[in-house]
Amino acid sequence: MKNDEPRRRTLGVLLFPGFELLDVFGPLEAFGMRVAKPHFDTVLLAEHAGPVESAQGPKALAEAAIDARPVDLVLVPGGIGTRKEVDNERLTRWISRCSADAELVMSVCTGAALLARAGVLDERQATSNKAAFSWVVSQGPKVRWVKQARWVEDGKFWTSSGVSAGIDMALAVIARLIRLELAEELALLMEYEWHRDAAHDPFAAVHKLV
Amino acid sequence: MKNDEPRRRTLGVLLFPGFELLDVFGPLEAFGMRVAKPHFDTVLLAEHAGPVESAQGPKALAEAAIDARPVDLVLVPGGIGTRKEVDNERLTRWISRCSADAELVMSVCTGAALLARAGVLDERQATSNKAAFSWVVSQGPKVRWVKQARWVEDGKFWTSSGVSAGIDMALAVIARLIRLELAEELALLMEYEWHRDAAHDPFAAVHKLV
Repeated sequence: MKNDEPRRRTLGVLLFPGFELLDVFGPLEAFGMRVAKPHFDTVLLAEHAGPVESAQGPKALAEAAIDARPVDLVLVPGGIGTRKEVDNERLTRWISRCSADAELVMSVCTGAALLARAGVLDERQATSNKAAFSWVVSQGPKVRWVKQARWVEDGKFWTSSGVSAGIDMALAVIARLIRLELAEELALLMEYEWHRDAAHDPFAAVHKLV
Repeated sequence: MKNDEPRRRTLGVLLFPGFELLDVFGPLEAFGMRVAKPHFDTVLLAEHAGPVESAQGPKALAEAAIDARPVDLVLVPGGIGTRKEVDNERLTRWISRCSADAELVMSVCTGAALLARAGVLDERQATSNKAAFSWVVSQGPKVRWVKQARWVEDGKFWTSSGVSAGIDMALAVIARLIRLELAEELALLMEYEWHRDAAHDPFAAVHKLV
């Protein structure tokens, strides 16, 4: 590798039956855009390679099984499937193992429940979807849950609020790992008005959490 | 069907190599959510059934070939693949044919170029991504292109601006076809601050179109 070439990180995105579409493809839109490709490789992972049905119905293709590829960054989505997958020990053990090695671990929405059940959020601050907050909290009694936040950063763990919040967090991660100007360029290309303030969360009040 | 059951519409979403991830999965998040399922069926269509690679890299699974399924609603995404597909006569003929029968036809981003080349936007108002606007305009000299708009509605044709604008348009379509309260509930579940004003478009000025 030449010295002037950027370091390329591999982002592994976990799929499971009943994953939430936008939790996965909002962040992947940003990480996978042409101007981001010099910095990131993305790979869809699942327990087994092949098609995985989303909560909404459409299927995405997992390119590899978990453990088949080393990853630098991990993203765990939410979706109704998390209710079942929190009891999937193969998945939570993988999350625990790859969290130890990864540079950065993200969750969107109820994906935080999977991180919590893997034990990697214990004694850490984290957030999740406000509409399913009490269930997520029940999955991680040792987690310091934050009721009002678009996303929360604690060490290498970044957890976002519901669904579309994953896009805001992904842009913030790209700003941190690469540079702010790249995140701003991506938001512009997506014609997306990026919420940059991690504390901005009007949805906590809607659900009477604050 | 009982009289009190809502009419269920089938939304066909076109995939082609190099489709933009969020153009497809932003709207599908909304149309496919549990609370929207009594109203909408969704199906991913492509020239051939099977995996289709997005512009970002991840693959989605087309469940059926175009023409294999009648659809009530159509969504045509953008993405770098449109540059090639505008010359794909099988695709533009399908767009032309199913537009004649469909209740409503949507495009996101440069998907408007495919509608334009299919001839269905002639003499109509339409918009597209502001970063690729001049190329899209060149594909439809008879279209009355609108330079500043989050989305444009003209008869059964709804065309949105770039990428994330598809989410705002999808919610507006759901509000129109079903009811406003369902669109508001979906935005809340997606923790998405819906831009409801079709004229709201800060990106036109960024690209010096206005």
